[in-house]
Amino acid sequence: MGLKEWIVPQERHFFDLLEEDAKAVAEGARALLDLLRDFRDVPGKQKHIKDIEHRGDEAVHTIFEELNKTFITPIDREDIMALASDLDNVLDMIDAAANRLRLYEIEEPSPAMVDLAEVIVEATSALEKAVGMIQDMKQADKVEAICVEVNRLENVADDLMNTSVAALFKEKDVIHIIKHKEIIERLEEATDYCEDVANVLSDIVAKNQ
Amino acid sequence: MGLKEWIVPQERHFFDLLEEDAKAVAEGARALLDLLRDFRDVPGKQKHIKDIEHRGDEAVHTIFEELNKTFITPIDREDIMALASDLDNVLDMIDAAANRLRLYEIEEPSPAMVDLAEVIVEATSALEKAVGMIQDMKQADKVEAICVEVNRLENVADDLMNTSVAALFKEKDVIHIIKHKEIIERLEEATDYCEDVANVLSDIVAKNQ
Amino acid sequence: MGLKEWIVPQERHFFDLLEEDAKAVAEGARALLDLLRDFRDVPGKQKHIKDIEHRGDEAVHTIFEELNKTFITPIDREDIMALASDLDNVLDMIDAAANRLRLYEIEEPSPAMVDLAEVIVEATSALEKAVGMIQDMKQADKVEAICVEVNRLENVADDLMNTSVAALFKEKDVIHIIKHKEIIERLEEATDYCEDVANVLSDIVAKNQ
Repeated sequence: MGLKEWIVPQERHFFDLLEEDAKAVAEGARALLDLLRDFRDVPGKQKHIKDIEHRGDEAVHTIFEELNKTFITPIDREDIMALASDLDNVLDMIDAAANRLRLYEIEEPSPAMVDLAEVIVEATSALEKAVGMIQDMKQADKVEAICVEVNRLENVADDLMNTSVAALFKEKDVIHIIKHKEIIERLEEATDYCEDVANVLSDIVAKNQ
Repeated sequence: MGLKEWIVPQERHFFDLLEEDAKAVAEGARALLDLLRDFRDVPGKQKHIKDIEHRGDEAVHTIFEELNKTFITPIDREDIMALASDLDNVLDMIDAAANRLRLYEIEEPSPAMVDLAEVIVEATSALEKAVGMIQDMKQADKVEAICVEVNRLENVADDLMNTSVAALFKEKDVIHIIKHKEIIERLEEATDYCEDVANVLSDIVAKNQ
Repeated sequence: MGLKEWIVPQERHFFDLLEEDAKAVAEGARALLDLLRDFRDVPGKQKHIKDIEHRGDEAVHTIFEELNKTFITPIDREDIMALASDLDNVLDMIDAAANRLRLYEIEEPSPAMVDLAEVIVEATSALEKAVGMIQDMKQADKVEAICVEVNRLENVADDLMNTSVAALFKEKDVIHIIKHKEIIERLEEATDYCEDVANVLSDIVAKNQ
C-alpha cells in the first residue's frame, strides 16, 4: 500500500463519482444514437435522454459539494473540477441535440446525424473506460492511447460536419437548412467537449506518473 | 471582531466592488426590459444600455487591477475573478441583445423577448442581493436560496426559448426568423451566465461557512 | 543578472515556446488576409492555413507537456496555460473562417471580410511583439500600450461586424446571408480571442513589475 492510499483512503470515492458521471454521459450518447437510428416515439426517447442528463447534473453537483468539504484530493482539485464540467458539457450537447430534434419537428434525421452520433458513442465509451483507469497510474499508457483516439474521433466529427453542412446548403428549403445545420453543429460540439475531457485526462496521467 | 476582519480590513472593499458590478448588471437588465416593453427611442435606450455596460467593464477592470496589487483577499482570488467575469458576461449578453434590436431594425419585439427580459431582471436582482450578502457568512442560507432560485429561472428561460424558437419556425419570413432567433438566444444566454454567477456564489458560501 | 534568472535559467524557454506560438498565429492571420485579398487557389491557400494551425496546435501541446514536467515556471503556470490556449483559439477561428470560405463555395469575399482580416493581422502582429516582450519586465509599459491597442482593435472589429451583418440582411438570397454572416462572425470572434490574449498579458505585467 503506497503512502498516498494510506493518507487519503476516504477520498478515493472521487474516482467513483467521476466514473458514475462518465457512465451517464456514455449512456446518454447511446440513447441519442438509438433515437436517431429508430426515429419513433421521439418525445419518449427525448425525455429518457433528459432524465440521463439530470442524473449527470446531480453527479456533477455531488462532486463539487464533496470538493468543498475535502482538503486532500487524490488528484488535483482543478482537474477533478475540469473533468466534471467537461463531461457535463458533453451531456448538455447530447441533450440539446435531442431536444431540438423534437422541438424543431424534424421529420427524419439525416445520415450525417446518425454518423455523428456513432462517433459520440465511440468517444464517450472510450472516455468512460479512461476515467475508470486514472486511479491506477500503471495504466497511464492505455489512458494516453484513448486520449489520442478521442482526438482522432473529434477530427472525424469535424469532417462529417463540414461535408454535411456544405451539402445541406445545396438544398432548397432554408428552414430545413437552418434546423439541420444547428443540430449537426451541436452534435459536433459534443465531440469537441469529448476532446476537452481527453486533454484533462492526458494532463492528469502526465503529472502523476 | 473576528481574526479575518482584523488581518485584512483594507481588503474588504472587494465586496464593495463586486456589489457595484452586480448593481450595474441588474440596472442593465431593467433598462433592457424597459426598451422591450416600451419600444420607442430605440437608439437612445440602446445607448443607455451600452453606457451601463461600459460602467460594468470599468468595475471588472478595477477588480482585476486591485487583485494584482493585493496579496490577501477576503475570499479566494479565483472566486472573485470568476464572479467578476461571469457578471460581465451577463451584461455583455444584455448589451448584445439590445444592440441587435437596433441594428437588425426589429419592428416590434415578440412577447417571448419581453418574458425573457423579465426573467433576466428577476435573476439579476436576486444576484445583486446575494452578492451583497457574501461578506457576512451568517447569511449563507439566504445566498443558497437565491442560487436555487436563479437555477430555476434559468430553466424557465430555457423553456421560453425552446417554445418560442419552435413557434418562430412556423413563420414565413426567413430573415425575420433568423433575426428573432438570434436575439432570443442571446437573452437566454444571459440567464445561463446568471446561473454561472449563482454557482460561484454557492461555492463561496459552501467553502467559507 | 537578477535572482530570478539565476534560479531558473532552463525554464526561460517557456518564453521561446510562447513566442513561437504567437508567431504562428500572426502568420495564420497574414495567410488569411492574403486569401481574402487575392481569392484564387482557395483550396491551396486554405490548406496552407490549416498547416499553420497544426503547427500552432503542436506548439500548444509542447507547452502543456513542458508545464507538466516543470516545477518552477518564470511566470505563473496558469498564465502560461491561458496565453497558450487563448492564442490557440485565435488560430482556430482563422482556420474556421478559411475552411468555410472553401466549403461554403463563397464566390467572392465581401469587403467587410477583408477589413476584418486586416484588423486580425494588426492585432496578432501586435500580440506577437508583446509576447516577445514579457521576459523583460522593463518593457511593461510597451506591453500595456499594445494591450490597449488590441482592445481598441476588438471594438473596431465589433463595429465592422455589426454594420456588415445589418447590411447583409438587406440582401435577397437567404443562403448567401447565412453563409456570409457565419464567416463574418468567426472573423470577429478571432479578435475577441485576441482581446483575451491581451488581457492575460496585461495581468502578467501588472503582477510582475
